[in-house]
Amino acid sequence: MARRVAFLGPVGTYTEDAALKYDPEADLQPFPSIVAVGLAVTSGVTDQGVVPIENSLEGSVTFTLDLLISQSGLSICNEIVVPIDHVLLAKSGTRAPEVQVVYSHPQGLAQCREFLERCLPQAEQRASLSTVACITDMLESSVTAAAISPRRAAALYDVEIIGQNIQDSPNNVTRFAVLDKSDHSPTGNDKTSMCFSFDQDAPGSLYGALVEFAKRDINLVKIESRPTKESLGRYIFLIDCEGHREDPLVKEAIEALESRVSELKIWGSYPKWDGA
Amino acid sequence: MARRVAFLGPVGTYTEDAALKYDPEADLQPFPSIVAVGLAVTSGVTDQGVVPIENSLEGSVTFTLDLLISQSGLSICNEIVVPIDHVLLAKSGTRAPEVQVVYSHPQGLAQCREFLERCLPQAEQRASLSTVACITDMLESSVTAAAISPRRAAALYDVEIIGQNIQDSPNNVTRFAVLDKSDHSPTGNDKTSMCFSFDQDAPGSLYGALVEFAKRDINLVKIESRPTKESLGRYIFLIDCEGHREDPLVKEAIEALESRVSELKIWGSYPKWDGA
Repeated sequence: MARRVAFLGPVGTYTEDAALKYDPEADLQPFPSIVAVGLAVTSGVTDQGVVPIENSLEGSVTFTLDLLISQSGLSICNEIVVPIDHVLLAKSGTRAPEVQVVYSHPQGLAQCREFLERCLPQAEQRASLSTVACITDMLESSVTAAAISPRRAAALYDVEIIGQNIQDSPNNVTRFAVLDKSDHSPTGNDKTSMCFSFDQDAPGSLYGALVEFAKRDINLVKIESRPTKESLGRYIFLIDCEGHREDPLVKEAIEALESRVSELKIWGSYPKWDGA
Repeated sequence: MARRVAFLGPVGTYTEDAALKYDPEADLQPFPSIVAVGLAVTSGVTDQGVVPIENSLEGSVTFTLDLLISQSGLSICNEIVVPIDHVLLAKSGTRAPEVQVVYSHPQGLAQCREFLERCLPQAEQRASLSTVACITDMLESSVTAAAISPRRAAALYDVEIIGQNIQDSPNNVTRFAVLDKSDHSPTGNDKTSMCFSFDQDAPGSLYGALVEFAKRDINLVKIESRPTKESLGRYIFLIDCEGHREDPLVKEAIEALESRVSELKIWGSYPKWDGA
């Protein structure tokens, strides 16, 4: 039986793209939010779930970080990196100078800012709830409209691609996390993600946590902070390090970390994306 | 002559609220984007500018961090903390069960998710470009609509407040930065913000940077990372520490840091918000 994989929908999004890249044979099921994908996995409605976690231009996807912080029973078992390839869509026969309104998710509009200023200076920019929902907004518009969407979404609607290579930066890739009830066994080329917090802010608490990695020569791939949501200025720290949590040195570092922090949650160890 | 202060508009936003709290006598001027507020300050169009930098629930405002990373000639000279108080607005006489569409910025919708699910389960949620732009979207709607907006915006339009205390979390405050060409002189109760990056990721580089603060007992108030936008996995680190950059120990730490990093930018020292 095909593996059931939830993804952040609707059909046509970059997340579906990532899920297909991860497992072309999977039974893919769209869910309306990142939290819903997490619940699909913890409840057993699907076997796994795919959500965006970080974009090379925008930074972290905070909804996903907050889900991993708060939801128990959820691990990262894999990562997938997908290039972001926005195109400009419109009803068949539309010419760019006639476009009066451009719809996209605010991030899609932001990532094509220069293109919009130069090539569609006359067009009013309007927000949509996703880079796929904007296609419906465009099709239902009473004035001449266009939408900024993933290339693969173009095939799903009766629309024409009227512009491509419209992004301001060519270095636009998104990293996705595959969520499961447990993480991945060691492969020899792994990463481990975790979060921790301190009871009290003391000078050197974070430094004291990082020293456990530094003195074992474990490279930190990423460090990030998220608000605890209790009060401004209190944070949960998120770390990605190289190695698997079962590697002896990583294991030792995690054990030492445990005694220095008030809460520690290991999100999982999983193979590094190999760029294929 | 009144101080000219740019703020992220339009009129009625929380940023205007913050600017008024900062200087009730100022000549306030709305600008359409965070980048535009920065340019207003560096070009001398205004004396100072106010932009959101961090929310207690959502985390950092990445547009502001990226502006401070990339724009030269811009310092933080003050901070302001403002409680976020969303209300539900509609045309006069509207009853909640009749509302078919709710407009707000995606963050406004997200922060009132539970309220919307329980009290307006029938209403479709639609994205607007800001929590003030959604009032116009609501007023122009062809079906019965409502908008989630700042309380002070209600007074600027011909609308009625049909719901209040609609946020899921009571701990919703936003910190704003006052931008100027130079920072603030020492007051004895200051913070210093800076960003730095490394040529190469080596185990312990970040640890080596933090040790300069730890060994001088300087408390780090915040640590954050932002993508360099060159490739996935390369970061710029952002730090807020206690103390003024002219305090002897902070000065020493910054000098030591300089020799450990490839780029260092001091965003400024400024008085801590006193909660007044």
